Amino acid sequence: MSQGCRWPAVLTIAGSDSGGGAGIQADLKTFAAHGCYGTSAITALTAQNTIGVQDVFPTPSEFLGKQITSILSDIDIKAIKTGMLFDAANTRAAIAALEDHYSNSDSNASNDSKSNVAIPTPTLPPLVCDPVCVSTSGHTLLDPDAISVIVEELFPLAVLVTPNKAEAELILNLSSSPQRQSRRDAPTLPRRIETLNDMLLAAQDLLSLGSKAVLLKGGHLVVLSEDVHRISEKHPSLLIVRDGILPDGGNMEILQANTNSAGVQLVVDVLCQTVENDDSDDSRQKPGPRMTLFCRPRIDSTNTHGTGCTLSSAVAAGLALGADVSTAVRRAVRYTYLGIIAADPTIGHGHGPLNHFHSMGELVVPRPTPTTPYPLTTLLIHRAGDAWKAYVEHEFVRLLGRGTLPRENFVHFIRQDYLYLKYYARAYALLSAKSTTFPSISRATQTVLNVLQEINTHKAFCASFGISEDELEQTPESAATAAYGGYLVDVGMRGDTTLLLIALLACLLGYGEVGLWLKKNVKKNKSGDTGERGWVIMDETDNPYVQWIEDYAGERYQAAVKAGLELIETRAASDPPSRARFEEWFAVWKRCTELEKGFWDMAMGLS
Amino acid sequence: MSQGCRWPAVLTIAGSDSGGGAGIQADLKTFAAHGCYGTSAITALTAQNTIGVQDVFPTPSEFLGKQITSILSDIDIKAIKTGMLFDAANTRAAIAALEDHYSNSDSNASNDSKSNVAIPTPTLPPLVCDPVCVSTSGHTLLDPDAISVIVEELFPLAVLVTPNKAEAELILNLSSSPQRQSRRDAPTLPRRIETLNDMLLAAQDLLSLGSKAVLLKGGHLVVLSEDVHRISEKHPSLLIVRDGILPDGGNMEILQANTNSAGVQLVVDVLCQTVENDDSDDSRQKPGPRMTLFCRPRIDSTNTHGTGCTLSSAVAAGLALGADVSTAVRRAVRYTYLGIIAADPTIGHGHGPLNHFHSMGELVVPRPTPTTPYPLTTLLIHRAGDAWKAYVEHEFVRLLGRGTLPRENFVHFIRQDYLYLKYYARAYALLSAKSTTFPSISRATQTVLNVLQEINTHKAFCASFGISEDELEQTPESAATAAYGGYLVDVGMRGDTTLLLIALLACLLGYGEVGLWLKKNVKKNKSGDTGERGWVIMDETDNPYVQWIEDYAGERYQAAVKAGLELIETRAASDPPSRARFEEWFAVWKRCTELEKGFWDMAMGLS
Repeated sequence: MSQGCRWPAVLTIAGSDSGGGAGIQADLKTFAAHGCYGTSAITALTAQNTIGVQDVFPTPSEFLGKQITSILSDIDIKAIKTGMLFDAANTRAAIAALEDHYSNSDSNASNDSKSNVAIPTPTLPPLVCDPVCVSTSGHTLLDPDAISVIVEELFPLAVLVTPNKAEAELILNLSSSPQRQSRRDAPTLPRRIETLNDMLLAAQDLLSLGSKAVLLKGGHLVVLSEDVHRISEKHPSLLIVRDGILPDGGNMEILQANTNSAGVQLVVDVLCQTVENDDSDDSRQKPGPRMTLFCRPRIDSTNTHGTGCTLSSAVAAGLALGADVSTAVRRAVRYTYLGIIAADPTIGHGHGPLNHFHSMGELVVPRPTPTTPYPLTTLLIHRAGDAWKAYVEHEFVRLLGRGTLPRENFVHFIRQDYLYLKYYARAYALLSAKSTTFPSISRATQTVLNVLQEINTHKAFCASFGISEDELEQTPESAATAAYGGYLVDVGMRGDTTLLLIALLACLLGYGEVGLWLKKNVKKNKSGDTGERGWVIMDETDNPYVQWIEDYAGERYQAAVKAGLELIETRAASDPPSRARFEEWFAVWKRCTELEKGFWDMAMGLS
Repeated sequence: MSQGCRWPAVLTIAGSDSGGGAGIQADLKTFAAHGCYGTSAITALTAQNTIGVQDVFPTPSEFLGKQITSILSDIDIKAIKTGMLFDAANTRAAIAALEDHYSNSDSNASNDSKSNVAIPTPTLPPLVCDPVCVSTSGHTLLDPDAISVIVEELFPLAVLVTPNKAEAELILNLSSSPQRQSRRDAPTLPRRIETLNDMLLAAQDLLSLGSKAVLLKGGHLVVLSEDVHRISEKHPSLLIVRDGILPDGGNMEILQANTNSAGVQLVVDVLCQTVENDDSDDSRQKPGPRMTLFCRPRIDSTNTHGTGCTLSSAVAAGLALGADVSTAVRRAVRYTYLGIIAADPTIGHGHGPLNHFHSMGELVVPRPTPTTPYPLTTLLIHRAGDAWKAYVEHEFVRLLGRGTLPRENFVHFIRQDYLYLKYYARAYALLSAKSTTFPSISRATQTVLNVLQEINTHKAFCASFGISEDELEQTPESAATAAYGGYLVDVGMRGDTTLLLIALLACLLGYGEVGLWLKKNVKKNKSGDTGERGWVIMDETDNPYVQWIEDYAGERYQAAVKAGLELIETRAASDPPSRARFEEWFAVWKRCTELEKGFWDMAMGLS
């Protein structure tokens, strides 16, 4: 049941946004949208909505540590993201709790003196640090003292830090890295990031502060497409990733919206990564950082509340799923971009939230469970309401079970069923013709052979009722037979193989159910029980139709039913239908169920 | 873009579970899985995991109120759920914040004396109260004093309260409702709920405490299927809803797992609802409560942490989406049941969480955006890597654009293209034959007519090169032509209409792109610009193929391309493919792209 249902766990250490668009709420939504299991340690509560932050209540440091310890001591965390840490004390408490669990020293192992067995210490999973300082609405979300703690103690633990323009400026102006001092003469002016070139320089300076990589977010800078063009010519080693923009090339006139043209406003995020020295290569030169620009068209939207939280969480989720930093960032940038575009603009009166679930859709057919092993078929029967019952518990079936069905009705039915089986066999032949694998060609062909076997019983019945094979062959086709047979061939002609399998299932399953039901009642009667609903059921010596019941209740037919059910259910599970496609399946199912009922109506009316 | 992306907002007032399986975390996940936007006011932080609650830190009452006020003052909340309220002070603070916003008095309106306009006071949306008292692990989550506040002040506001067995016992033993006193003689024994009958009585007593309905959850009671049978015979007015159990009836032998047999253990939840007196009906008798039993097979799972939170949140989400209480409960019970079954058993070492996203699947094709109006086609081209470029920027195309393509290659191409167009027309005729609506029959037929028009230009080209119509007709078919044509007819025969449309799109779109691209370069050349990539492009007086370029760059052909693109994109949006189905589409797309390249290879090689 739970096969394939593994949800890698991710931890966010951040504030709570009551409004649900940012903070741990955005993080948890983002994790879920990536198929990750979200856990959260709350650094502070906020009374917040889309308009702004009305108030903040910090979590006591000790309690922040306790939350982190509870999570880490029980759940195998695959990636960690830190967001708003509020103040220096909470930042230190978070770091202490992480270091306590993921101690890099050998102390844990050697402490275990009694057993003398080295207990492996878990290593810190990839950590993404979003150095949240100020909210979009201007509310200070971080005590200034905390910034140096984040830079000095948290950055070195992080595989990625994700500042925006304001945060980057704040961090670079507070920290005075030796690189910067040597590059520019003192006194340094307050650092400002205004151009794409400023971003490249700032990202490199931020990288020198100790993290493995820096993603400097450009949402607050307007960059033109020609700026990107210019800088990529100047720095040929720059990687340019365009999103919402088709690959470069002249031949994209129709699909390509005009996003490569000059003057188009872009948002550009800059990823700056340290490149590990390859030990096998003894080149003396230390390689410079690898720089990637993620470009996308700027979109006009006020649904940007929680964008930063969402982006860093999406990166963490990507890392938990096994992606490398560059791939995780590329996907996260795209995920966040689509979240803004797909947002519901009616939530709140200020900067509304993203749509975190833009890439998830409804699963119409539930997964199988121990008590519902055939969920698609069960759903089809449920949805069809009384139609299924009207078919499989038809008056014809009841009379046949009792043995009181007039012979002429049975004969009429058998002769029409003989004609129907021609369509049925042809529909399976069509299924075979539409199949693209040998197993599916074989399965369909085998069913054609089964039908050719089944008609022998029809011939035998007719012979026992004094109807020659020639008379059987010359039977005029009833409208009910033509309607049903034609429908099968029509569905087989116009749809895919799954649709045809559904059309064929109503007959296959229905006769199987009828066979078993009647047989159970015959058995009950023989063992002295009363049949269901007080039926008086004759045993085989009295019921002239026992052979018919035995055929459909028999092992051979029942095995075919089971195989057919499993085939269609496997299809639905491996290729889950959309709501629209399910409705198409259902329409075919219901029609076939009704045509089956119509077939027995015809048999009863001798029409 | 955001059409259909409305997310009704829901508020949870509850505790935070750091482990992510219960509390506001479970609530937010549940809301999201229902397509609702989650907001949350946190009553207390817990340091908690799947093993237990290690510590609790309550939110100051004042700050709880602030969170609720921030949310309600900005976001239009469609349903509210309360979970763990921690103590009497926080319970009162929550109620006060709600009553402050949703005042039922006219004071708000009359206060607005200046404008003298009555401001409508918002009415309280449906409120579901989950009276969380004790955690599964035995940790007390509610101060006993709070229970009476919840019962006396919160229950009357609730459309539904959802206690489990232990909570129901606690509430009934603490409260001494007049009904109970009159029913049983004092002194009353401590109330215990051990049987299904106890549940029915307890649910009615709980209903008398003031909520509109009570859902008494039976997860901690073992009920046998015969118990349900017995009680439904005794109380014929009871509604029985079976989940994971097919409708009653004899004829369900194959699909029906043995869940109706005697001895099968069930979980039964009891819904007890007040029935509004119908004013138009002056019957003097007050109707009794309506009772519904929700039955499902008991499943053996330790993934039950947060079940109660999830259930009540799912009800709140259902109410926000417009369902009535009974429908919302039925869906919520089913949602929670599937969540337990689909859970990932590897999360944590104790009682693990549910899978809240069991009924959501991946949306492979993103929604259209302003810069990516054709997301399916864009994705197909991206995924095919260089295959698309190898087709639309083929050497043949470049030479044709320059006017330097040898005449014999062009003639060979035109003659084979003439033969190809037979298949192409037949494929559209097949599409027409497979269509079930007049607009789609008309569209496909119109394209056949367009192709019949297109062959006239082929005849004209051939005539201008001295090839008679008869010679053209007798052209031997190249392998590349047969391979491509046969593939189109094969896909058309075996797949559905969408698959055929995708097969046809590679040719339709590719020739459109080629036409526009070449025309742009011809124009550039004429206006004195250099063509792209330094081409020397002749104008029409020098380029013998200008007419060919004009045909495909022309308005008529381009309109057909646009219509084709829009049709397939609309299909993908209204019937989003599963990953498996998309892969099938992609395989066809890539093959056709390669066959197009092969076609031009053939033209270059005169093969």
